[in-house]
Amino acid sequence: MKILETAKKAKVASYSFKNTSVDIRNKVLKDLKTIIIDNTQNIIKHNKLDIDDSIKNGLSESLIDRLTLNEDRIKGMADGIEVIINLEDPINLILEHRILDNGLDLKKVSVPFGTIGIIYESRPNVTIDCAALCIKSSNTCVLKGGKEAFNTNKYLVSLVHQALKQNDLSEDVVVLCDNPSREEVAHLMKAKEYIDLLIPRGSANLINHTLENARVPVIETGAGICHIYVDNKFNEEKAINIIVNAKVSRPSVCNAVETLLVNREIAKDFLPKISKALKENNVVLNGNKEVKDIIDVNLLKDDEYDIEYLNLTLAIKIVKDVEEAIEHINHFGTKHSDAIITDNIENATKFFNTVDSSSIYHNTSTRFTDGGVFGLGAEIGISTQKMHARGPMGLKELTTYAYHIKGDGQIR
Amino acid sequence: MKILETAKKAKVASYSFKNTSVDIRNKVLKDLKTIIIDNTQNIIKHNKLDIDDSIKNGLSESLIDRLTLNEDRIKGMADGIEVIINLEDPINLILEHRILDNGLDLKKVSVPFGTIGIIYESRPNVTIDCAALCIKSSNTCVLKGGKEAFNTNKYLVSLVHQALKQNDLSEDVVVLCDNPSREEVAHLMKAKEYIDLLIPRGSANLINHTLENARVPVIETGAGICHIYVDNKFNEEKAINIIVNAKVSRPSVCNAVETLLVNREIAKDFLPKISKALKENNVVLNGNKEVKDIIDVNLLKDDEYDIEYLNLTLAIKIVKDVEEAIEHINHFGTKHSDAIITDNIENATKFFNTVDSSSIYHNTSTRFTDGGVFGLGAEIGISTQKMHARGPMGLKELTTYAYHIKGDGQIR
Repeated sequence: MKILETAKKAKVASYSFKNTSVDIRNKVLKDLKTIIIDNTQNIIKHNKLDIDDSIKNGLSESLIDRLTLNEDRIKGMADGIEVIINLEDPINLILEHRILDNGLDLKKVSVPFGTIGIIYESRPNVTIDCAALCIKSSNTCVLKGGKEAFNTNKYLVSLVHQALKQNDLSEDVVVLCDNPSREEVAHLMKAKEYIDLLIPRGSANLINHTLENARVPVIETGAGICHIYVDNKFNEEKAINIIVNAKVSRPSVCNAVETLLVNREIAKDFLPKISKALKENNVVLNGNKEVKDIIDVNLLKDDEYDIEYLNLTLAIKIVKDVEEAIEHINHFGTKHSDAIITDNIENATKFFNTVDSSSIYHNTSTRFTDGGVFGLGAEIGISTQKMHARGPMGLKELTTYAYHIKGDGQIR
Repeated sequence: MKILETAKKAKVASYSFKNTSVDIRNKVLKDLKTIIIDNTQNIIKHNKLDIDDSIKNGLSESLIDRLTLNEDRIKGMADGIEVIINLEDPINLILEHRILDNGLDLKKVSVPFGTIGIIYESRPNVTIDCAALCIKSSNTCVLKGGKEAFNTNKYLVSLVHQALKQNDLSEDVVVLCDNPSREEVAHLMKAKEYIDLLIPRGSANLINHTLENARVPVIETGAGICHIYVDNKFNEEKAINIIVNAKVSRPSVCNAVETLLVNREIAKDFLPKISKALKENNVVLNGNKEVKDIIDVNLLKDDEYDIEYLNLTLAIKIVKDVEEAIEHINHFGTKHSDAIITDNIENATKFFNTVDSSSIYHNTSTRFTDGGVFGLGAEIGISTQKMHARGPMGLKELTTYAYHIKGDGQIR
């Protein structure tokens, strides 16, 4: 099967690539940046083929927007590479070192995973992002992008190959799957001999399909039903700013707020104010009967608070106290980002200690969950699982570790 | 379904248990140790029910041995608890802390997973081991032991409940599944809403079955096809000691060596010597035609080097050099523990950097892969995967982390 042959190439390349010095890896990235900038018009040309096909096939405008590369976005890809070049090498760090009583010298060393599979959708800049992060972390990678972006991705990977070849490295360090069938992708997801880690990037559909079908280790990313809870003692002006920001600044991303929980004691006073501020920003409000009795909202049933809107819609619910807010979040949330707005330190502490999410906020916006903001420099995705990596995943999260033990004939 | 109700109890208990102070967690463990010692004869009595049933059902002697608890083994369980009490609290450690440019106070904090599922086989001491490790790490746990040990496990868990109750904690912190059917266990493996991490402990069959069926995050443990490669420049006496130790000291465990690789240049001289030493220790030798031409072995085909013997059998193969040894290990190995015996530092370095295993040894025995030896204090299993935890897993590996971000109205 062709897709497994492709994956095998990357796996074979991984054994020598893991020993490439950081200077060479950075040189590849530097060359790649130059090649991308020099080929801006060629990238746009190849991208146009995909755009034309997509228009012909009647794809939606938002999908075509995600697919499109213009000069700005290409410069953005190149700048992203520069950021990655400047990050510390995550490989061969001595995480622990001790001499055991019997004289054994034991080191715990950070090492690359080997080969990372990435399955993504229409945005072709993911191709360069992921290739650069994998190259920097000494991993080889198997890329499976959306078929609507295939011409663009193929051309972008040819530029990566050029950078690799210029530095006497195998092209197999970054391989692109050749428009595989659904069945072939299912085989890739089970190819434990070739794929050490699989990261799906994209819609909830893609992620659930991957989780359902994969047998290789998967990082679950992305889904974000994020909450803000407004407690009974709080700063009203800050609360309104935070809620509007968390919903309006970029509603299509996973760290945007989807549900507002309001303490019952302040609901009658606060809901009309926040409703006004949100409606001025064109936000559509949903809520159950108790909310509708106070402000004008579309009626939601009590079990309909499980929606990731990803647009200018916000669900609102009234809760008794911080405990009920936490219970709601742990039930309906996706372990992504949740915030409490309160002047009560005890309740903030309870919220931090009991909400089961990767990123928990007090008196600030959920929108801050981001690899760049958290100081990781770059991000390959936001994990919503608890195993291995949680929240924004940077270079370090693309490594694992090994124990290196040196002896002089010791036996047990 | 009863098993899901059981799992749900542990999940519900996890939200409050994660905030229990280390003093109380240690107190529970101290009480548990006392209760176990005080009830030694009662444990033996309940264990006898299982042993009698197993004899009646014609179970093998080795299985009955694994099932059996005597005074020594019960004391071993109690001592194991003492070790865990003395380990550092893995929870609420500040892993990173920084003030962002916008004034946000960001902490990366170690937190428990929540609820850990453990599926294991006949050894009932695993019940106490796992319960103690989970309690110490503020996780609740769902235990599913072997049905042949059910009376023993049920009694042991009742002792855990006694220790929890004495400290005003919910019994649901540690729950035992009530002899579930295979179908029920399959549901448990998919219960993402209740199980945050699943650890199968036992045979390759159990582990493969779990990996095949689970939808919750799983840690793959245990399988160990471990190798020792003898290079062309080496200390013969140390080599013989190490190989005999790695095979003979405890052949039934996963870190025992299963395959010996010998450099072709020294094979004719060394193989008769190591063969003599191993046969004096009752080791049965297997090898392909090239080996058989030099020493007396049972004939193996070239593709039959994928066996985890777990007994006094050793496979032998001749290889050209360190590169071919590494290639063999990365193909036939299980990423567990592999060793090189060489006086050539360059080859040792190549071995460290290219063998794809969790624990890599130079001039010493693979038998050292162990949580106690590595300084983790106690171990819940040995991971053979690369995600989250690799090699021996201690308390730290039963934790994940969360970001706690405090602000003062900041928006993005």
